[in-house]
Amino acid sequence: MIKSKDLLGIKELTSEEIYNILDAASNFKDVLKRDIKKVPPLRGKTVANLFFEPSTRTRTSFELAAKRLSADVINFSVPTSSVVKGETLMDTALTIRALGADLVVIRHASAGVPHFLSQIEDISVINAGDGTNEHPTQALLDLFTILSHKKKIKGLTVAIVGDISHSRVARSNIYALTKLGAKVRIICPPTLMPAEIGNLDIEIFDSMDKGLDNVDVIIMLRLQLERQSKGFFPSLEEYYNLYGLTTRRLALANKNTIVMHPGPMNRGVEIDSAVADGAQSVILEQVTNGLAVRMAVLYIYAGVKK
Amino acid sequence: MIKSKDLLGIKELTSEEIYNILDAASNFKDVLKRDIKKVPPLRGKTVANLFFEPSTRTRTSFELAAKRLSADVINFSVPTSSVVKGETLMDTALTIRALGADLVVIRHASAGVPHFLSQIEDISVINAGDGTNEHPTQALLDLFTILSHKKKIKGLTVAIVGDISHSRVARSNIYALTKLGAKVRIICPPTLMPAEIGNLDIEIFDSMDKGLDNVDVIIMLRLQLERQSKGFFPSLEEYYNLYGLTTRRLALANKNTIVMHPGPMNRGVEIDSAVADGAQSVILEQVTNGLAVRMAVLYIYAGVKK
Amino acid sequence: MIKSKDLLGIKELTSEEIYNILDAASNFKDVLKRDIKKVPPLRGKTVANLFFEPSTRTRTSFELAAKRLSADVINFSVPTSSVVKGETLMDTALTIRALGADLVVIRHASAGVPHFLSQIEDISVINAGDGTNEHPTQALLDLFTILSHKKKIKGLTVAIVGDISHSRVARSNIYALTKLGAKVRIICPPTLMPAEIGNLDIEIFDSMDKGLDNVDVIIMLRLQLERQSKGFFPSLEEYYNLYGLTTRRLALANKNTIVMHPGPMNRGVEIDSAVADGAQSVILEQVTNGLAVRMAVLYIYAGVKK
Repeated sequence: MIKSKDLLGIKELTSEEIYNILDAASNFKDVLKRDIKKVPPLRGKTVANLFFEPSTRTRTSFELAAKRLSADVINFSVPTSSVVKGETLMDTALTIRALGADLVVIRHASAGVPHFLSQIEDISVINAGDGTNEHPTQALLDLFTILSHKKKIKGLTVAIVGDISHSRVARSNIYALTKLGAKVRIICPPTLMPAEIGNLDIEIFDSMDKGLDNVDVIIMLRLQLERQSKGFFPSLEEYYNLYGLTTRRLALANKNTIVMHPGPMNRGVEIDSAVADGAQSVILEQVTNGLAVRMAVLYIYAGVKK
Repeated sequence: MIKSKDLLGIKELTSEEIYNILDAASNFKDVLKRDIKKVPPLRGKTVANLFFEPSTRTRTSFELAAKRLSADVINFSVPTSSVVKGETLMDTALTIRALGADLVVIRHASAGVPHFLSQIEDISVINAGDGTNEHPTQALLDLFTILSHKKKIKGLTVAIVGDISHSRVARSNIYALTKLGAKVRIICPPTLMPAEIGNLDIEIFDSMDKGLDNVDVIIMLRLQLERQSKGFFPSLEEYYNLYGLTTRRLALANKNTIVMHPGPMNRGVEIDSAVADGAQSVILEQVTNGLAVRMAVLYIYAGVKK
Repeated sequence: MIKSKDLLGIKELTSEEIYNILDAASNFKDVLKRDIKKVPPLRGKTVANLFFEPSTRTRTSFELAAKRLSADVINFSVPTSSVVKGETLMDTALTIRALGADLVVIRHASAGVPHFLSQIEDISVINAGDGTNEHPTQALLDLFTILSHKKKIKGLTVAIVGDISHSRVARSNIYALTKLGAKVRIICPPTLMPAEIGNLDIEIFDSMDKGLDNVDVIIMLRLQLERQSKGFFPSLEEYYNLYGLTTRRLALANKNTIVMHPGPMNRGVEIDSAVADGAQSVILEQVTNGLAVRMAVLYIYAGVKK
């Protein structure tokens, strides 16, 4: 059973809690295969989406997950919110609680915002991405996707490729995969290597050809194109040449290796279309699994005694 | 019965298919007169609205139509979507399908976008306006409105007035009306006459006084005010003098002639307020009929075997 | 029973009508304490939110209120609406009615807009704030909050503090409180005193220390920070020094005095955090009561014979 009322990060979860969420997600995945994809457990409950960064995929995924559980959803997007009137973040969250919301799903550009809001009693805070810190539901849906193909996590070798330094997806996946016993390799340009890397139980490569050798899973990260202007890499072509996942490079892994990407993809930058649309890609399955995992998360955290 | 899984344009429909949709719309119109305007057929289904051009009327009409059929609705608007992050249109659509959407309602500034997305299996694409090509549900609701007043389409004379060249509403209506046996006249300034006009089975007028003589139906088009700066016409006053529908001009038709407009209207530009609010105007009926027609479209296409 | 089909302002309500709304709100407040906070009376009804000014709190409160009554909600926000295409306000409202909406909740920067739209038959207009005129549901929720603490309105002394001149919250509260027999004091800088003040049955103070003496209720108004650049007051610090509610000043009232604020608060400008979060603050209760009051308003006005 889950102890905390909030899902702040993978770091805060035990292996057992992670498996609890994945088991629940497995049941909800079955619901998603039905003709009528709606179940009643959160009827009369309210989920508030509080997104301080633009997002289609994650926000929509949470919104649909809530609706399929029969919850009501309220969306607070930044440009029209009281936040532009200068209200503090905490006051916004307290207002949402006073409106009777049971769960707040929050994305914010600053690391630690979900932790800050989790001080509020009577409401569950679900981290949908905080700065470069964590994006726990992404890691959970990635685990779910890997499990559905590999039947286990322990003992797998997983390569995470790209801008590790700025990636909350990478961070949450590193915590999740190492916690469950996978070996994690990161492959990235030296300029995009995180400073704290020495504390993590991972292998580091700056070459695709060496790093992809015999891996079971490849997680490609989205390249934030605006990093280029800040000098982290010379050009998109150069990045593609050194770190793009091509058919030739995928062949260096093995023929059962699965290819993942959190989306949205930059085709021709971090991933070639032949790979993105190829037989080893499970990228669209990740989207579907994300919905199942988020239904599980909302369902479980709505039920935690507060 | 409808053959295609997608509603791409009137051009692709047979007369029989058009009447199938209008018959279903007639049943849903009855639902809209009830005190409780909600029916359950799309419960557990998901409709995704993907609007790349701003729209209140059409998007809201589809959204309400979906809700009244008990579907869940997700809205993707451009400014907050992954599209600004550089995701391809096809990837956005594939993501929406992976989220389990059954129908995608799309509006896009480029002609042919709905056709392009219709390659995706397992999802129905409904064209809500693509560039200057088609706006099929507008033509269907216009047919429905004409039928409710004239009891037939065949043999009627319908004048379409305004910027035909840039109008998807005009194009869809020309296809629909000629397909069902009406005689179509277009009345427009020579600068706003479409190049392909010779291929269409229509009569062309550049004078309101001649073109309106004895017509049964007048469809006024919205003038895109930004066309003026591109030199298509000298001034709004000039446009109103030559092509505005006034009480005097309406009298040139006959006293049962109905006046239509897809909205939003520029009062005092293409239409005089005395006409817009007059006894022969059916403009607000069009809005209500649009809801019934879109309920029919969503209901029918959700049921097509995919 | 309520006579008018529209809620335009407190000015238009009788005391009896006000108490009718508050009684209904009391029942809905009980619903909000349940585990399943949803009731069916507006199932199949449609509420249109038409907000021409940005608002999170009020729009969300109305949206949630509608959903908890099982109504469908459509949101028209300005940037994506037909209004940017030049449609008249009346045409927008007529379109909303033609779409079958039962209630329109409107906020607009111009006083009188709800009254103008109330000419439309068959639809109830609920004023959610019109210019500097009225914000009736705010006054109703303030009355509800005062009643729940003081058990009566008649005979209470209520101080309203801040920018009275530009405040629809102040205006609606002055009408409501005097109508129900409270004594109202306003405390504000001379530059922010309304011109029509002589016609209102209120006491005027320009000093906090005198004005707060022995009051039962303090309603702090939000300071619109942009007023500063227009020279209404010299600086935020100066404003805080003269009109900010601090612990010391609150002690000038009495120990059962309650502190209210419509939100969002400028902490450290019109109110000190120690007061905002203190034992006498009922600010978050106001948010919850707002939901109950808006459920009552939507429920009652949906039922008025039109």
